[in-house]
Amino acid sequence: MAYTVPTVHDLTQPELQQALQRATDQKTKPLGALGQLETLAVQIGLILGTERPEMLAPQLVVFAADHGLAARGVSAYPSDVTWQMVENFLAGGAAVSVLARQHGISLTVMDCGVHHDFSARPGLHVRKVAYGTADASTQPAMTQAQCAQALAYGSALVNELPGNVLLLGEMGIGNTSAASLLMARLIGLDIADCTGAGTGLDSAAVQRKVAVLREVLQRHSNATEPLEVLAAMGGFEIAAMVGAVLQAAAQRRVVVVDGFITTAAVLVAACLQPHVLQRCVFAHQSGERGHALMLAHLKAQPLLNLGLRLGEGSGAALAWPLLVSAAAILRDMATFESAAVSQSASAEQATL
Amino acid sequence: MAYTVPTVHDLTQPELQQALQRATDQKTKPLGALGQLETLAVQIGLILGTERPEMLAPQLVVFAADHGLAARGVSAYPSDVTWQMVENFLAGGAAVSVLARQHGISLTVMDCGVHHDFSARPGLHVRKVAYGTADASTQPAMTQAQCAQALAYGSALVNELPGNVLLLGEMGIGNTSAASLLMARLIGLDIADCTGAGTGLDSAAVQRKVAVLREVLQRHSNATEPLEVLAAMGGFEIAAMVGAVLQAAAQRRVVVVDGFITTAAVLVAACLQPHVLQRCVFAHQSGERGHALMLAHLKAQPLLNLGLRLGEGSGAALAWPLLVSAAAILRDMATFESAAVSQSASAEQATL
Repeated sequence: MAYTVPTVHDLTQPELQQALQRATDQKTKPLGALGQLETLAVQIGLILGTERPEMLAPQLVVFAADHGLAARGVSAYPSDVTWQMVENFLAGGAAVSVLARQHGISLTVMDCGVHHDFSARPGLHVRKVAYGTADASTQPAMTQAQCAQALAYGSALVNELPGNVLLLGEMGIGNTSAASLLMARLIGLDIADCTGAGTGLDSAAVQRKVAVLREVLQRHSNATEPLEVLAAMGGFEIAAMVGAVLQAAAQRRVVVVDGFITTAAVLVAACLQPHVLQRCVFAHQSGERGHALMLAHLKAQPLLNLGLRLGEGSGAALAWPLLVSAAAILRDMATFESAAVSQSASAEQATL
Repeated sequence: MAYTVPTVHDLTQPELQQALQRATDQKTKPLGALGQLETLAVQIGLILGTERPEMLAPQLVVFAADHGLAARGVSAYPSDVTWQMVENFLAGGAAVSVLARQHGISLTVMDCGVHHDFSARPGLHVRKVAYGTADASTQPAMTQAQCAQALAYGSALVNELPGNVLLLGEMGIGNTSAASLLMARLIGLDIADCTGAGTGLDSAAVQRKVAVLREVLQRHSNATEPLEVLAAMGGFEIAAMVGAVLQAAAQRRVVVVDGFITTAAVLVAACLQPHVLQRCVFAHQSGERGHALMLAHLKAQPLLNLGLRLGEGSGAALAWPLLVSAAAILRDMATFESAAVSQSASAEQATL
């Protein structure tokens, strides 16, 4: 399957930016008193191209796949947990299911390459590239053709989804390893700084994980271009997310990034089309070692820092009401003038 | 009016705590993977005394009053902004109005001593102790009798409100000064470490504010007991909040604390009845200098850190969906057993 990276245009719009900043400053509050929420409101306005942004039909997609590298013992859980958790998402019992329900977010699970055959169900999109990737310590995780197929599947899924917001989620035993590998190679960091406990390894097991990942990086030392790196050491769910992020960004959807693995997908997408980052809201800084560094590299300011390290899109769902608040403040708050509230002397000058 | 501090009992319940921890650990996620949300879930379960907590009819009260000390130029805004913002809350145009609407939180404004006569309106409770406090740099802000009256008003209001959650908000030009004074005296810190820009003073104006507050502390050097300190240097809205917090805590309501000023009210309440803190969820760490120190003194772990410095209860409203999520996770998430998901070897041992 052919795949072409879409062009993601620069969103810089000085006039709209100024209008959004002025609108925010005229609301009945001291200048800047809503902190990061104000920055977020302006960003959402710029993405959606309006001073009165409305986010419609938010879509959370859990991209799921298995990893050949899991056979090397890089996770605390067996690979079967991937398909078992997909069943749990669809049955409504997982954290992300509960949170999506709370906030009225549509939840879709995309099987990009789980080692299991699912029965058809509403909310499940089966776009299986293969029954899991190959073991990246002995060969590329996927062929370039498989990688292109996963990218195209992710892109096509976004095209099918309504609304103007995509929230990213993922499930795949072994995928913190894939994310660490992508991060180490694409940013150029030592793998030890990119590798954490994942779902709960103890420190000895993390040491062993680092050793395995170092081996993988060595095995694929020739892979340096983003899509080569993705094919060599990524995962089907990560590749599908890269395709989805690029497509959502090209369509000027708001992209809500979850934790370590979804941020790695955004990193790949941003290497291909840097303006992707203008559309990304980073939901939280996770407890996974490496995430803070990756966020800093992307100059991202996460909204939450609650020590989450679950994935699934749970952090994106938890942060979602903050985006709704930011847009509501821009649309619904009174101005000093409309509410007849006195300004401070300095604010009067500042907003003249 | 007489006021008696209610007894706030110790909530320590080892059996329930253990049951809540076990319930959280058995959910389909790695142990501890929901980070601070898990701690919050256990806390809410302990406050409400159940493994399946439901928070009902959340009530956000904006306690409003004016401050005689404002005449000394400690705020960037004129005192008239207090009543103008009360009108804005009631008209639905303020940040806290927008946020309360978003989340289905009932919003009540309590006039504890605003220098203005309001017409009667739904959602407005007029319990005016006086038309603002006296200038604390020349005399006690209020008499002991006025203080008792404000405390009793706050307590009585909570009795009238339904539900099992109280979210704290406040409005009063000059009240960061009162909060800084309470903090400095009750914790025993230098006033410079407790004093910030409030609604937006520049650094020279903050210097002048510190000098005025130092004078006030000097003037009331004899006030050391919590209620003496509150009467000498507090505000009517802060005293009413202290009464409300104590009453809500005695009734085992969840108390959601907003920013710098509401935390100062909780500090006074905790000096009187330390177990109050078991019922308090700290919504955020504000951008106001002094708040981080005060939170650290109370051993509080705030949920958000977004550089907010607006007050009104806006931070409490922004954090509210996280409390709803925590309770929902406890009630609605599947367990490893119910969802037939495999555990990690170490987690299996840990949850035996």
